[in-house]
Order: sequence, then structure tokens, then C-alpha cells
Amino acid sequence: MAALTFQDIIAARQIVTRFLKPTPLIHYPELSEQLGFQAYIKHENHNPTGSFKIRGGLNFMHHLPEAQREKGVITATRGNHGQSIAYAAAQFGVKATVVVPHGNNPEKNSAMQAFGAELIEHGADFDEALVLCERLQAERGLYYVHPCMEPGLFHGVGTYSLEIFESLPNVDAIIVPIGGGSGSCGAITVAKAINPKVKVIGVQAENAPAIYRSWKEEVRVETDSCDTMADGIATRAPFLLPLSIIQDGIHDIVLLSESELEEGIRLALRWTHNLAEGAGASPIAAAHKLTDKLAGKNVVMVMSGGNLDTETLKKILAHQL
Amino acid sequence: MAALTFQDIIAARQIVTRFLKPTPLIHYPELSEQLGFQAYIKHENHNPTGSFKIRGGLNFMHHLPEAQREKGVITATRGNHGQSIAYAAAQFGVKATVVVPHGNNPEKNSAMQAFGAELIEHGADFDEALVLCERLQAERGLYYVHPCMEPGLFHGVGTYSLEIFESLPNVDAIIVPIGGGSGSCGAITVAKAINPKVKVIGVQAENAPAIYRSWKEEVRVETDSCDTMADGIATRAPFLLPLSIIQDGIHDIVLLSESELEEGIRLALRWTHNLAEGAGASPIAAAHKLTDKLAGKNVVMVMSGGNLDTETLKKILAHQL
Repeated sequence: MAALTFQDIIAARQIVTRFLKPTPLIHYPELSEQLGFQAYIKHENHNPTGSFKIRGGLNFMHHLPEAQREKGVITATRGNHGQSIAYAAAQFGVKATVVVPHGNNPEKNSAMQAFGAELIEHGADFDEALVLCERLQAERGLYYVHPCMEPGLFHGVGTYSLEIFESLPNVDAIIVPIGGGSGSCGAITVAKAINPKVKVIGVQAENAPAIYRSWKEEVRVETDSCDTMADGIATRAPFLLPLSIIQDGIHDIVLLSESELEEGIRLALRWTHNLAEGAGASPIAAAHKLTDKLAGKNVVMVMSGGNLDTETLKKILAHQL
Repeated sequence: MAALTFQDIIAARQIVTRFLKPTPLIHYPELSEQLGFQAYIKHENHNPTGSFKIRGGLNFMHHLPEAQREKGVITATRGNHGQSIAYAAAQFGVKATVVVPHGNNPEKNSAMQAFGAELIEHGADFDEALVLCERLQAERGLYYVHPCMEPGLFHGVGTYSLEIFESLPNVDAIIVPIGGGSGSCGAITVAKAINPKVKVIGVQAENAPAIYRSWKEEVRVETDSCDTMADGIATRAPFLLPLSIIQDGIHDIVLLSESELEEGIRLALRWTHNLAEGAGASPIAAAHKLTDKLAGKNVVMVMSGGNLDTETLKKILAHQL
């Protein structure tokens, strides 16, 4: 993947807005009182697939050559990426095949199927699903949409950061969960172009700290596991380009324990009345560790997604996880 | 209150759009499969106060004479109406006083205060709060914003129905909770003007069936109690004008038991990943009783609000209510 530029994101917006309305940026007075700064939530969970990834899928699919659109696309996924590709494929009349590991969340599987994707369950984990994905890509002549290396996805995802600056020109800081890195890289790139004083602050899980550690140690670190309930930020092996953008432009990265991530979901329900998934609620949880630094500032927290299954929610509310 | 016209709603839109973006109308493929019709949700819960009432408050406040704006407004409320008035008052620099009964939901109280309203707790129930509200209105020269008789509120609320027809011109039916009647009257008025074939279907609670019974019996019926967990549709004494519009234009009214209302909240979480309050989820619950009638149609369900407190949610998920 080549570098990510502001121009790429501007161009992607022309595509994304054909399909999606801007998501709301809402100011929450009570949360602001709690946190001691002006608390705004960018509601990416209000997108039709319940997550920001849809922006990337639509932009990617628009740029896919016609001949490849006719053959179809394939990807391996645990959830939000697959829903984005399934949704975008349906919009463009492209056949999408999605490979998930056995035991994948059945709600996420059925959502992808409902958008029209062919779902194949294979392997014990994501890496085994990926093996089949790569084999089928070759056998069937499909285009493999890599979740973390496809430029069109990064360009599309960057559009939510454009919307943040347009809705709140005097934003001081943006707190964004870091998984594959497309959200944070978009925020960094847009901030650099519009107002380099804006601080982009990332959030990772203590149990999946690959990007945090790579940033701290200034060398690419892979971890052996990424066992966090916040599957949107469960990254084990960071990719080099997003890592270099993050290295260069992130102001800080906050690490959260599993219980802090769960508390984030409860806080999101309490103060915003929105169902957020672990990654989506992580900026609200992280904000509680940043109150001194951000006092009095205009702070945007990106609620990246809301795809939490009801059983997990029930356990989190009962403090049973 | 004079009659409600399409022109009133068109005019209100010019005001409301100065403050609010249109809320999303999202198609849910899985819910569509479940219900056997094309299921769309109008996400009024995505408004900054978490409910559709904000539209009415903003339109009302715009039309309030300057002299009265300087003196301030007062209302009695249990929640969403008060948040709407508090929010709109803050936008226009008007002082708002809100009277709530003792024991009112503390989350709703603190939300109104956070929007800048003065909160007064008085009386054992809504009717007793109302007495103080009327006394203070006279003593302090405040304008009393009646939740069910103020034309500006109805005009503003009607704007969500305009948005429905613009987003989905071939809508066949709209399912809307009926509380004070502003939402349903807006849908009826807009449907009559744009496409009278569109069926507007109301939802009430078995425990608060005043409007259902008035409609069935063709005479205004008050009930002795309105003891439903869905406080947005807990109406005991219907007003004549909304009643006459409903009488004239509603296609059907579905009654729901308390357990069906709670199931609606669970269904909303499961299929849309949105937190809905009882009234907000009631169209999804009602839809399950309308599958034969609506088979194959384009159906919009109005998620009127999402202000459900976490403790109640916890009990509903644990089936403990």
C-alpha cells in the first residue's frame, strides 16, 4: 500500500457521500461534566452496518475494475470488515464471499449473509480461515480484499475524520481506537492537513498491545496473542504503513484492561444511550484516564461500532465477564 | 390548538433543519427476513436528546415572542419533553424551568439539568407536579409549554415524517408509537398530503389504552391509570385535536402487553444494535403482529427514543421485570 494522503481522503468522500449521510457528531453535556472537557461522540455506530468500516468498503468497491467486479471478491473476517465488504458488494452488484473461522459470532455471520454474501466457515481461528481465503482467491479468480493493506479502505475510512473537522472546526483532540489502523491513520492525516495542533490519541487493549508496543519501542512488534473482548482492536501483527503513520503522528496511546473496556460499554449506555461494542466504547473508557491532560478542551471520541451481541451485553451489565 | 396542516410541517422544517440533520432511515435485511417485509427504522433515537421531541421544542422556541423568551418558559414532564424544551431553550438563550414529580428517573433529571434547565421536584405524581408548574407560571410570568396542546410542538415533530417520505418515496406503511399523539398526527398529515395510500399504524400499551379505546369506541375515553414501563406512551387523558386526527386517519392501532414491550427492547438490541426505550422499540414489537397484513411491503418503524436507563435495561435483559 502506498502512502495515505489528504487528497486520497478528499477524493474518497466524493464516493462515500453517494451512499452515506454524514454520521452525527453529538455533544454530551453530562459526559462533559463528568470528564471536565467538552465531550463529543462521532457516531460511526449509526452507519447502516453499525461500524465505520462501511466507508472503506464502498470506496474500495467503486474503484474495483469492472472485469474484477464481474468475477467477485473474497475476504476473511471476524465481523465488521466482512459486513462492510458484503454491504458494498451488494450496492455494486458484486458477488462477495466471506470466510470466517468456526465458532465465529453467529450474529455477525447472519448479518453478512443478510447483506447477500456467501459465508464459508473454515478453520479453528482467523489465520486458518485466511488460508482457505487465499486458496479460493486463486481457484476462483476472486479479488482478495485485505482488511489492513487495501488503500481504498483507508481512503474511505478517513472520511469520518473530515466530517469531524467540518462539524467542529475548533476540535482539540480526537480519541480513536486502534485496530488495523485505518481509523487512526485517517485522523492523523486529516489533522496534519487541517490543523496539526489537534492531538490524535489512540486506544489499545492491554491484552492486544502490538501497536502500542511498536510505538513505544520504535520497532515493529508482533504479539503471540490478542485475547481481548474488543474484537475491533484485537490486532496481533501490525502492518508497516499504518505503523509508520501512527509512529509519526500519534500523540499518545492509552492501554485499557478488559474490565476497563467493559466499563466503557456501561459508560456509553449510561451517558449516551448508545450500544457500543468494546472498541467503539474504548475512547470513552480511555477518556477517564486523560481528564488532566484534556481539561477544558473540545474532545471527539470516535464510537467506531456498535455490533455487540445481546448475550455479551447481558453479561457485561451483570458484571459477569 | 388549531388544526394541523401539511403546510405547518413544511414551514417547521425550515426551522428544525437549522439545528438538526435529518435522522437516518436504515434498512435492516435480517429484520426484514424475520418479518417478511422490508423493514426500515427511522432513527429518532439518534437525535441529540435521544428522542423525536427535540424537533418540536426547537420549532416552538423559534416562534416564541422575544418578550416571552426574555421571561422564560416552564413545563412539567417525566422526561423526553423536558429534555426537548431544555435543549431548545439553551439554543435560544431562554431560561427553562422544569417541574418533575418526586421519584422521577434521576438520569432524565440530570440530563435536563445538563442542558441548563432549572429542575424542581414537586408532588407525588405528574398531576401534582403540574399544579406547581401552573402556579409558578402565574407567579413568575413564565410561558407554560403544554406537552400535548402546543401547536409548534406538533409542527416540529411532523418533520420526521417528511424525511421518511423523502428517503423512501415508495413507503407502504409507517408504524408509530402513540403517546400524546404528535408523532402519529404528523405521520397521518404528511401521508395524506403526499400519498394517502400509505397506512399509518399506531402502537399503544394494553396498560395505557386511552387512545386505542377512544378510537375503537368513537368517543373520548380517559383511563384511571396508565401503568406501563413505556413512559413515552403512558397517556391517560387524550386531547381532542390529536384524537380527531387519529380518528380520521389511523389505519390500525396495535396493543402490546408489558412483556411484549420488553421483548421489543430485546429485539431492537438484537436486530438493530440500538438501545431503544419502551415506546421506541414498540413498533418492532408490534410489527410481529402485522406480518400477514404487511407481507412484502416497505414498512417504516419509528424508533421514537432511546432514553432507557441502564438498571431497567439490565432487568429486561435478565427477564426480571
